[in-house]
Amino acid sequence: MQKYNVAVVGATGVVGQEMLKVLEERKFPVNKIIPLASSRSAGARVEFQGREIVVQELKAGSFQDVQLALFSAGSAVSEKFAPVAAQAGAVVIDNTAFYRMDPQVPLVVPEVNAGALKNRPKGIIANPNCSTAQMVVALKPIYAAAGIRRLVISTYQAVSGTGKEAIDELQQEVLDILQMKPVKPAVYPHQIAFNILPHIDDFLDSGYSKEEMKMVNETKKIFGDDSIRVTATTCRVPVFYCHSECVNIETREKITAAEVRALLAKAENVIVQDEPQKNIYPMPLLAAGRNETFVGRIREDISIDNGIELFIVSDNLRKGAAFNAVQIAEEVIKDF
Amino acid sequence: MQKYNVAVVGATGVVGQEMLKVLEERKFPVNKIIPLASSRSAGARVEFQGREIVVQELKAGSFQDVQLALFSAGSAVSEKFAPVAAQAGAVVIDNTAFYRMDPQVPLVVPEVNAGALKNRPKGIIANPNCSTAQMVVALKPIYAAAGIRRLVISTYQAVSGTGKEAIDELQQEVLDILQMKPVKPAVYPHQIAFNILPHIDDFLDSGYSKEEMKMVNETKKIFGDDSIRVTATTCRVPVFYCHSECVNIETREKITAAEVRALLAKAENVIVQDEPQKNIYPMPLLAAGRNETFVGRIREDISIDNGIELFIVSDNLRKGAAFNAVQIAEEVIKDF
Repeated sequence: MQKYNVAVVGATGVVGQEMLKVLEERKFPVNKIIPLASSRSAGARVEFQGREIVVQELKAGSFQDVQLALFSAGSAVSEKFAPVAAQAGAVVIDNTAFYRMDPQVPLVVPEVNAGALKNRPKGIIANPNCSTAQMVVALKPIYAAAGIRRLVISTYQAVSGTGKEAIDELQQEVLDILQMKPVKPAVYPHQIAFNILPHIDDFLDSGYSKEEMKMVNETKKIFGDDSIRVTATTCRVPVFYCHSECVNIETREKITAAEVRALLAKAENVIVQDEPQKNIYPMPLLAAGRNETFVGRIREDISIDNGIELFIVSDNLRKGAAFNAVQIAEEVIKDF
Repeated sequence: MQKYNVAVVGATGVVGQEMLKVLEERKFPVNKIIPLASSRSAGARVEFQGREIVVQELKAGSFQDVQLALFSAGSAVSEKFAPVAAQAGAVVIDNTAFYRMDPQVPLVVPEVNAGALKNRPKGIIANPNCSTAQMVVALKPIYAAAGIRRLVISTYQAVSGTGKEAIDELQQEVLDILQMKPVKPAVYPHQIAFNILPHIDDFLDSGYSKEEMKMVNETKKIFGDDSIRVTATTCRVPVFYCHSECVNIETREKITAAEVRALLAKAENVIVQDEPQKNIYPMPLLAAGRNETFVGRIREDISIDNGIELFIVSDNLRKGAAFNAVQIAEEVIKDF
């Protein structure tokens, strides 16, 4: 069996760590793993397949003999080094927002648009925004069966989406509050413990945040359908792992809740948890560390004719980042 | 100045305590305060105007010489004792769901429909569901200016809405988790710390919860307009105080975000916090203990022609319960 040299850029970050874990769990055919990071983190050690591997400093020459490069070290790093890696012959799978809306870069969630992978003139493939990735997996069967006219989305996003320092900040704030000490937010502009921030990424003059516009624009690109109308409000909640979403869908054709439940029950990487009267519904607690997307609270919207309400939960570090990236890598090597 | 004997039924609960606090803060003309509770809590002491007052057991004879009775001790207690209090001559202001949809009981948020108070054939006035009360305050000026066709709501509701034992449960779970001890949920069916539960009140066969249907039905009743279409998903979040809501509004006429901002800025008991680029938006942290409803993230919905997005936060124990009840009492005594 053919094996590949795989670089992980940002290997010490929460997503980078998760990428290593998922490559291992999925038994991805790795010949050599090359963990890369900035000079600040170079020299640190990461674990892969039971071995400790020294993280190397990311440089122009880092991608010699690398077939696959998974990037998750911020947009500035991807802007600079993704083309370098592609030039050196690696297929780049980039988890940042930098290339997502580039018409020459496919934006892929394999369950939805694996076909788009073939056409990658820059040698770069973009991994979508975490909230978008999990949502489109759940929407795909509905889109195929009934079409989608409009989405109204509200999110409940975990601090792990911001990174390791945000996980530490939530934990420290909780400790400080329980000990009656003053809270000193640094990662977020306000206390996140026991609070809700309707604020993810920067705000635009329209009043929408960049995170909200990612959901709007990436959804259209992944479905290849600009006619889908999308609005979103994205909120940070005091949860460590997994993003939750209320998604209100207006379909083109009528579809019943029972039909949606049946379609989702057989959808790839989707688990239906929908017996609310038995307290069975998706929750961050149950989705953490899982690759699947969990869907529940499936019901017909009583306010319009063709409406479906969903509650969708998935691990933002998995389907929203590392798992989707590794799925893309699995698709890519089929054609190597 | 005329003063009144005021009974508070459920005086030892979180809402009852808040009612005493708000009566005091608002300098409500109280002659005598009569805190009432079940036999279990009778004998406890509550504070009012700097004095400790012994809680009496709620009985049929409790309402002798009482002009106003504020109820917040559960639907079963209101079902049984609200008519008793009304019969004894008190005006009942009931915070439970029991009478809210009774056509002979006005359901009132004074900023919206104070006029409905006049017609109370049963001597009972209902205080709305917490999530609904704060929402309609923010919606009123928009309804008046542009009409409302449809609402799509997602909520982020604090544990204090469930009561004192839920506040204790969240705190205990956080402590247990930080100390690596097992979590033992009792009030909620699942852990609430660092988790999200898409579950408030019981579920109906339609898939909606009773809490969601309260938002649907009470909104129509308060506005006196059955043509408003409403859908909601209500979620419990690990926050102690204040409910947050994403509200997507489809208006009948076009209204701009600037117009909405201007209308809300002069609306009674509304505070606009809407400079997101300066990190100014509503949050539970800032709304706790306040009577006002905070509105921000005001923007035109890019997915439809006549759409407005709002993020609304208010203290569920205040506008959602005690403050609204005391406001109603203030209106009622104007006509005594």
